[in-house]
Amino acid sequence: MSHASNMPCQSNPELLTELFNLLQPHLAELDDFLKKQIGSFEEEIRDHVAYCIDTSGKRIRPSLIFFSGWAGDKIVSERLVKLAAVIETVHLATLVHDDIMDEADIRRNRPTVAKIHGNSTAVLLGDALFSHAVYLATQFPTSEVSERVAIAMRNVCTGEILQTMQRGDPDISLATYRRIIDLKTAELFQVACFLGARLADRPEDYVQAVGKFGRHLGIAYQIYDDLTDLIGSEEKIGKTLGTDIATGKPTLPIILLREKLDDEEEARLRQTLSGECDADIDFWLSKLSETGVVSNVREAIFQEIEKARGSLAPFSGSRDVELLHTLSELLWNQVDALQSHRVTV
Amino acid sequence: MSHASNMPCQSNPELLTELFNLLQPHLAELDDFLKKQIGSFEEEIRDHVAYCIDTSGKRIRPSLIFFSGWAGDKIVSERLVKLAAVIETVHLATLVHDDIMDEADIRRNRPTVAKIHGNSTAVLLGDALFSHAVYLATQFPTSEVSERVAIAMRNVCTGEILQTMQRGDPDISLATYRRIIDLKTAELFQVACFLGARLADRPEDYVQAVGKFGRHLGIAYQIYDDLTDLIGSEEKIGKTLGTDIATGKPTLPIILLREKLDDEEEARLRQTLSGECDADIDFWLSKLSETGVVSNVREAIFQEIEKARGSLAPFSGSRDVELLHTLSELLWNQVDALQSHRVTV
Repeated sequence: MSHASNMPCQSNPELLTELFNLLQPHLAELDDFLKKQIGSFEEEIRDHVAYCIDTSGKRIRPSLIFFSGWAGDKIVSERLVKLAAVIETVHLATLVHDDIMDEADIRRNRPTVAKIHGNSTAVLLGDALFSHAVYLATQFPTSEVSERVAIAMRNVCTGEILQTMQRGDPDISLATYRRIIDLKTAELFQVACFLGARLADRPEDYVQAVGKFGRHLGIAYQIYDDLTDLIGSEEKIGKTLGTDIATGKPTLPIILLREKLDDEEEARLRQTLSGECDADIDFWLSKLSETGVVSNVREAIFQEIEKARGSLAPFSGSRDVELLHTLSELLWNQVDALQSHRVTV
Repeated sequence: MSHASNMPCQSNPELLTELFNLLQPHLAELDDFLKKQIGSFEEEIRDHVAYCIDTSGKRIRPSLIFFSGWAGDKIVSERLVKLAAVIETVHLATLVHDDIMDEADIRRNRPTVAKIHGNSTAVLLGDALFSHAVYLATQFPTSEVSERVAIAMRNVCTGEILQTMQRGDPDISLATYRRIIDLKTAELFQVACFLGARLADRPEDYVQAVGKFGRHLGIAYQIYDDLTDLIGSEEKIGKTLGTDIATGKPTLPIILLREKLDDEEEARLRQTLSGECDADIDFWLSKLSETGVVSNVREAIFQEIEKARGSLAPFSGSRDVELLHTLSELLWNQVDALQSHRVTV
């Protein structure tokens, strides 16, 4: 808790409201822009596309874009709206494909595309969304946007492939886990911040720094997301806990827990991850809590958030940095609030 | 047979050899270029990528590119090699995804990626190939390449979605069938020719005309490909015939046959396509033959090839046009040769 003690430690609804109010006109423009894109698709698949471009997402990547190149509290930048549409569409395409792989039936309280239309259509619809995102990226005057987006897309997919390859492997190293989440999540956070600042014509050193901010925040966010699979957060209430363990996906809590088990327990963890025996989720949740692993994971997230902030330290005082800092505070507070939901079995 | 009588009617191995010899240095450079791309992917997935970028394909789209902007009989254009790599990689990515949808175990005499690594990895690997193709496209000085490639990719996927939606529908119209093959196949042929000529700095009217050539040739090629699912061609010997009927995919032969059946036979066709009864392939093959539908389909292909050639008529005399004409002659001869393999039950 060393870091948390220096920071606001309570979940802060005012902060969320403040950021939401600031972002609202930008996100409304983004929603309009995304809806207009539906008309670019052939008539027969417009309903499918509309279903994918739903407006219930958290829009984290767009928020990073708007803040990284903040145009002013009441000014919506058309360029940033278009960039946000590119990055969010890439993200939505990956979700459509993710749901095939995870054999997920439900996302955001609605049946997944794969569930409604079958895997074939879901594969192709994800491809069509990817393609359209790239098309939008090519509409910027320089090729930097489409180039960076293409590289980020390749990296996101690579991270997901590595994750698929590691599934069921109890011996995954910490380095491999970090590499996977860097590719599959932090990459798109990084490019969102980098290009947001670039398209707002910010100086090169800030563009680079804000890219680093995005990368560290992305890592923090993914570790947080993995942790909430084990510890109920407000968002995840009602969701089945422990699906990662049950489906053999080793995340940071499991990797750290591995070191703290006796031989018999370690053997049991191996069998669980490899699918040789069913996952006794309650047992593992209590183990995570009593070994202090949950605290260690939270600490790891705080460290990443501090690194993210550190990369922006030379630019403190600007409105961009202030907003990005506030966004990171929101995540910090969410992680901190997890404490009160700590699992007791 | 009205058109065929004006044209060379024999399969011509000399023609194939001549074109192959001309293309060989270009295709060798393309293979080298594609192999070099493997190093751009993360180490763990390089073997997967190498498996996808195999060198046994027909390389039709690259051939169209090289001929559309022919640099000279001994001159290999670096730009066209790079463009060929972009288009071929997009094509290879679609094959990886196609094999998931078709639940295909074998392609080009090897197990499919989906068969070896599972559907999840195949989805992601296709995505990574798409992304890398786009990245290569962004390396051209203008955004026209990446823009056109992105649109073509979206259209290819859309065509495949429409095809998936029509699967099992015995009432598919001729117009819908043509629209599907235009999107899923002709689009990439069109963009290959268009950009091949563009990157070779050809005049605008030729660039447009060669794009049209590609589109018509693509339609001809897809109808031919669909026909060979029913009539054994040299390439397809040893392959199971009639898989399209058996899996409810209505193609031109089936659409034309539908009009020529009595009520009882039509009901049987409907049940077959919708999967209500098993496909009696021998019955349908003999029906196709005795009703003259095979000849009608061949005629439709010849007409498309003539349209393709017609769009290049104003430019006849140039080496580009001569080579594209020869390529279309190869397809013509292959279609013509199908006659001698006409099915007898």
